[in-house]
Amino acid sequence: MKKKVILAYSGGLDTTYCALYLSRVLEYEVHAVTINTGGFTRVELDEIKQRALSLGVVSYTCIDSVVEYYESCLKYLLFGNVLKNNTYPLSVSAERTIQAKLIAEHALKVGAHAICHGSTGAGNDQIRFDVAFHVLAPHMKIITPIRDLKLSREEEMAFLKENKVDMNFEKAKYSINKGLWGTSVGGNETLTSDQYLPEEAFPSQVHKTTSEQHTLLFDNGELVGVDTEVYNHPIKAIKKLEELASPFGIGRDIHVGDTIIGIKGRVGFEASAALIAIKAHHLLEKHTLSKHQLAIKDQLAVVYGNWLHEAMFLDPVMRNIETFFKHSQSSVSGKVFMTFLPYRFILNGVESQFDLMSDQFGQYGENNKAWTGEDVKGFSKIMANALTIYHQINPGYGQ
Amino acid sequence: MKKKVILAYSGGLDTTYCALYLSRVLEYEVHAVTINTGGFTRVELDEIKQRALSLGVVSYTCIDSVVEYYESCLKYLLFGNVLKNNTYPLSVSAERTIQAKLIAEHALKVGAHAICHGSTGAGNDQIRFDVAFHVLAPHMKIITPIRDLKLSREEEMAFLKENKVDMNFEKAKYSINKGLWGTSVGGNETLTSDQYLPEEAFPSQVHKTTSEQHTLLFDNGELVGVDTEVYNHPIKAIKKLEELASPFGIGRDIHVGDTIIGIKGRVGFEASAALIAIKAHHLLEKHTLSKHQLAIKDQLAVVYGNWLHEAMFLDPVMRNIETFFKHSQSSVSGKVFMTFLPYRFILNGVESQFDLMSDQFGQYGENNKAWTGEDVKGFSKIMANALTIYHQINPGYGQ
Amino acid sequence: MKKKVILAYSGGLDTTYCALYLSRVLEYEVHAVTINTGGFTRVELDEIKQRALSLGVVSYTCIDSVVEYYESCLKYLLFGNVLKNNTYPLSVSAERTIQAKLIAEHALKVGAHAICHGSTGAGNDQIRFDVAFHVLAPHMKIITPIRDLKLSREEEMAFLKENKVDMNFEKAKYSINKGLWGTSVGGNETLTSDQYLPEEAFPSQVHKTTSEQHTLLFDNGELVGVDTEVYNHPIKAIKKLEELASPFGIGRDIHVGDTIIGIKGRVGFEASAALIAIKAHHLLEKHTLSKHQLAIKDQLAVVYGNWLHEAMFLDPVMRNIETFFKHSQSSVSGKVFMTFLPYRFILNGVESQFDLMSDQFGQYGENNKAWTGEDVKGFSKIMANALTIYHQINPGYGQ
Amino acid sequence: MKKKVILAYSGGLDTTYCALYLSRVLEYEVHAVTINTGGFTRVELDEIKQRALSLGVVSYTCIDSVVEYYESCLKYLLFGNVLKNNTYPLSVSAERTIQAKLIAEHALKVGAHAICHGSTGAGNDQIRFDVAFHVLAPHMKIITPIRDLKLSREEEMAFLKENKVDMNFEKAKYSINKGLWGTSVGGNETLTSDQYLPEEAFPSQVHKTTSEQHTLLFDNGELVGVDTEVYNHPIKAIKKLEELASPFGIGRDIHVGDTIIGIKGRVGFEASAALIAIKAHHLLEKHTLSKHQLAIKDQLAVVYGNWLHEAMFLDPVMRNIETFFKHSQSSVSGKVFMTFLPYRFILNGVESQFDLMSDQFGQYGENNKAWTGEDVKGFSKIMANALTIYHQINPGYGQ
Repeated sequence: MKKKVILAYSGGLDTTYCALYLSRVLEYEVHAVTINTGGFTRVELDEIKQRALSLGVVSYTCIDSVVEYYESCLKYLLFGNVLKNNTYPLSVSAERTIQAKLIAEHALKVGAHAICHGSTGAGNDQIRFDVAFHVLAPHMKIITPIRDLKLSREEEMAFLKENKVDMNFEKAKYSINKGLWGTSVGGNETLTSDQYLPEEAFPSQVHKTTSEQHTLLFDNGELVGVDTEVYNHPIKAIKKLEELASPFGIGRDIHVGDTIIGIKGRVGFEASAALIAIKAHHLLEKHTLSKHQLAIKDQLAVVYGNWLHEAMFLDPVMRNIETFFKHSQSSVSGKVFMTFLPYRFILNGVESQFDLMSDQFGQYGENNKAWTGEDVKGFSKIMANALTIYHQINPGYGQ
Repeated sequence: MKKKVILAYSGGLDTTYCALYLSRVLEYEVHAVTINTGGFTRVELDEIKQRALSLGVVSYTCIDSVVEYYESCLKYLLFGNVLKNNTYPLSVSAERTIQAKLIAEHALKVGAHAICHGSTGAGNDQIRFDVAFHVLAPHMKIITPIRDLKLSREEEMAFLKENKVDMNFEKAKYSINKGLWGTSVGGNETLTSDQYLPEEAFPSQVHKTTSEQHTLLFDNGELVGVDTEVYNHPIKAIKKLEELASPFGIGRDIHVGDTIIGIKGRVGFEASAALIAIKAHHLLEKHTLSKHQLAIKDQLAVVYGNWLHEAMFLDPVMRNIETFFKHSQSSVSGKVFMTFLPYRFILNGVESQFDLMSDQFGQYGENNKAWTGEDVKGFSKIMANALTIYHQINPGYGQ
Repeated sequence: MKKKVILAYSGGLDTTYCALYLSRVLEYEVHAVTINTGGFTRVELDEIKQRALSLGVVSYTCIDSVVEYYESCLKYLLFGNVLKNNTYPLSVSAERTIQAKLIAEHALKVGAHAICHGSTGAGNDQIRFDVAFHVLAPHMKIITPIRDLKLSREEEMAFLKENKVDMNFEKAKYSINKGLWGTSVGGNETLTSDQYLPEEAFPSQVHKTTSEQHTLLFDNGELVGVDTEVYNHPIKAIKKLEELASPFGIGRDIHVGDTIIGIKGRVGFEASAALIAIKAHHLLEKHTLSKHQLAIKDQLAVVYGNWLHEAMFLDPVMRNIETFFKHSQSSVSGKVFMTFLPYRFILNGVESQFDLMSDQFGQYGENNKAWTGEDVKGFSKIMANALTIYHQINPGYGQ
Repeated sequence: MKKKVILAYSGGLDTTYCALYLSRVLEYEVHAVTINTGGFTRVELDEIKQRALSLGVVSYTCIDSVVEYYESCLKYLLFGNVLKNNTYPLSVSAERTIQAKLIAEHALKVGAHAICHGSTGAGNDQIRFDVAFHVLAPHMKIITPIRDLKLSREEEMAFLKENKVDMNFEKAKYSINKGLWGTSVGGNETLTSDQYLPEEAFPSQVHKTTSEQHTLLFDNGELVGVDTEVYNHPIKAIKKLEELASPFGIGRDIHVGDTIIGIKGRVGFEASAALIAIKAHHLLEKHTLSKHQLAIKDQLAVVYGNWLHEAMFLDPVMRNIETFFKHSQSSVSGKVFMTFLPYRFILNGVESQFDLMSDQFGQYGENNKAWTGEDVKGFSKIMANALTIYHQINPGYGQ
């Protein structure tokens, strides 16, 4: 009897090669699984399914994990305003991490003997899959044909042909990974240090030329509405925001990052919904959270982003941080007013019942009644105490 | 004999009132001092001088402190990529802090009996002046008429008139503070939470409509050249950058911040040179510094920005952080290629002999020779160890 | 009709003076309140009550707040292993902070017009009281006779005499503040930088000379049992631990700290239960938490301790941190084995079902089966990647 | 012609096996090198040399690296008061790291073809050697027979016998690693979670029974004198301190740590000089550094200790941190007064011209003249501002 292998199947050339290699060469009973975290259209999912079945896999399963993806990860990236190196919304990192976790759990559930991913040996994804599989399914064999065999595209195609699989895998000029939290873009330019991606490389066609006013509605830190519409799940609000903003070409950049394996790499991305939502959320927080909350949230967000990126999502500290984030959002509710323009957006302001900047407390730049000049004199006198002593003991220090 | 007071004089209504009040009411020998940190034109400085002299001050001194301002503070804001709450380049905070320090040092040097600043009782500047004076000139009297008397604009004007001073202080619709590291803008909109500033509120008139390519040259972290020109001092490069970028209206935003006195406040700003230089410098660092250097620099930058903002610039930890920053910049040299467009800019890429992203080490996303798939398998196996153990001891944790 | 004032009454000379001053001089209706956070015996509480009543206060209330003190603060100091500057368990800081909060809430509840504390103008306590009163009862008048009048001990005594109050306030050689989380000690020595406190200054008489073995039992991070006894509330376990350890003179030291008002101060303390519980708890955590949990907990503990110390307990970030702490304790259960000896203790080890150091996973220092030498070779190869690249690009760096 | 291998030789069974295995089996030209970082006596070094030569190595070199060890690492551990998890002075981590670096540099200098270390596959040391070799000598072959062959002690002995090497390697009950910064101890107890090491396991025989007074002298953060003696190099002061303190059995504990390879491990240690020097240095810093310096130093010390422990010593951020540490020490000069007692010590106090706790600035707990009660009232009023606003907007928060 053949042993059962779970293959993380995306429909691309690499995982198609794996499907065939697992059944024909390694003689496994292949069960292909696609974890849908929101990056595929219904049509694309159908194509992936047809492709998998035509490869002769024993079963094909598509798991709709958009809600789980949002609830277990995206939500916290928004709560934390997480942008890796102040730039990248971790679109792919988050998606691959959750896919790896769900594939491992699925493999355990169906009692697989082995588990296969199609990552190469040069990127971050291999580590995310490996680690999730080791941690959640420690006794399961991990098979990685693409990494092990180091095949060229042509060799993979030839193998398909040999095995009578006639599929069309045109090499796209730009490799694209689309997801709910943004689309990554790789190409010849991202292999250099000095070239930007051309307009055509980005997923959206920019056709908006005049500005538009929009309002985002947040409730306990979650994006729940856009303009006049309130949605029954934040995922719908994110999709609506993407739909409104992507024709403006908002949220494009190239991130230069440290891969888990120690090399620097560049990745282009377009992530209009993620960037707009994060910046709007951050602005609302600046109005509704205390200075100290903002500071500690920022520190934890760096940790959260780093460990998500570096395949440490399953560390229990991530659950602790999520608890902190969630608890900090109780007053992050209200509206954020924005203007969308080609390739950029403006945060106009906020309206919130929890707004701490209220003229009932004394206006910045104007006189006020909550305290007197004498109070401030005492304040700065005492505040200077430690430094006054320091400079008397260390005269001329730092000069 | 009258006692000598040093007045920090800016030429505005408040400090003009102070000059008169000090001499006519408090009967001091008034010495007016302007610290020029680069925000005034030569014409403006002449006007300030004439205004001071016409008020009958005993002496007027303008200290050109642009180089000192850059060397003791701005340089480190660039090294640290300091943006308060990821937004604001601390233009005013930095300027006022250095002015306060230099005024205190000047007052000590000339043996003044008192020292006067014209800040109101509602903002950050009063604390920056107070603290610097307490720390550096602990036995000197601090006089703050505007804060103490809580006068309206009209009352101040009336006092001038009484004293036969006929000066024109038209109330501008927007209060502007121009400096080398950016211009701050206050107006009716910034007193609300929900309104953005109109185009007219910003200092630059945007007249560029097509894109331009520019190159910034960094040497040991300092901006030393723009396009083909290398300057003999970074200040000139900053000014050139401002000159090129401000016609695009780059670097505008509204910052919502926590004032030292505990209220939230909004401030508009336009800081094209600061924002472009910081983002370009950060990109160059992402190519030339190690992951751990980037991480620790970010942490220290938050501290540096906070204490600069909160009047703690004279704390010795600031000197320690500056030492760290300077030491970290030894490989931050090279070119950054940019595109300027109306209201935004694109970082196209970098070129540096210290670029750690080099294809001689294995390209991200491609096969490579520096390590094998087996190496990575071992890596992720060992990397997963701690989590594998954790999840065996705590089955189902976080699910 | 007289206005109602709530007086935070401790029974000492300063607050006794305040009681009289409020009624006789300021003509208030004085309501004395003692917040018992566990530092008083029943006999002492009775004396305080009698003393208050004999001063002619309109009402005297003693609020037993030990449970609230533990649940709202002490618990988190243990979860966070909080020791200020790695030394001081914040015994007084915690106690005074909670007392201030409860006094303010009580004053609000009874509709007082003013609120009075007896702190001097030189310490931290005045700030803790002031801030809690401003924050929780912003419109209530704060009265601080001792700070305002700067009276000597003798002047206070004379005022009592004048008012026919005949009480005995012998000046103790050492000022002692006893609490559930430790006892602070001040004396002539703590006013110097170079002298230690003598044996007599500490509250416990050391009479144990031989070692004893004890076991602490933790459940979800809380101390729930000592030796064979499990208690129905952690407070009882803390008291039992103190009872067992204080005859050994464990937990004594002098802390040199930065006061809120900017001067450095020394305070002696004896805190056997706090120090033993914290160190035991920390050891259990080292066995049961992940490396990353330990690291982030340490960072948050510094923040928590600082803001507690510096009168920022009411900042919402403190509630967020508490949530993190609580969530991190789900596996911090088990036994810690200890030896008590005169003036010191030894942590012998732990026993926990959540112990991550288990020989089923490969023993440290011995061969094992969970991974191979090849795995580790790959691990260190990949781990070195970034540094290898760095040193090729920057030859001789740091040498 | 045989290829040249550099063997890191310690004289123990494992590296003795390596020496033979490299020459007899792998047919290398073996050059044995011992890096002396201060843990060996002259007699021990002679024995190691004789042993190496009797194995037929082509050359034996002992490099005296004590000064380099101190200057490139120990000094900074003291400046940072580095104790891993507040417990362990990183004695072995530091030593092995520097040895690995120096071995790699030596191998490069002599043009070796390969480099060999004798670490097993279960500990931290293998990673420290591997990483230093990969980074500093990236093209050199790394040979690790003990890790690869997984031999038992008996098999190693048998191989020696076969090869006519008659050496005596008695298995000690406790494995000891002695160094300048402490001695580590492993034994059966450290393989459990619940047992402490017996008295006999520790290196020093405790024979002091009465207390002794000692004074440590620091200059710019370095330990330069003990009692009345000032030394021409801090290493001598450290050795003197060890000589005075070890007969008291001071500085013993068991550390439970996270190894680089992800498992938890326990290690016993005795490090009297390191612990006393660190605690004394920390106390002196508490008197002479600002609150903010202490805070940031603590944060950087955690990073420094972690990366030293985890084989990241060659990361450039470590050089940056060292620069910060050194710069922060300019006022850390003065005397620390101590009492040594059996198994413990007391920090009595300090004397320093840079002491910031001086009664000329107002005594803690007493009245003072540097500020008034009114100043403090203003201070706490303004300090409470943000929280007062917060609690008005969020009534009942956190209750």
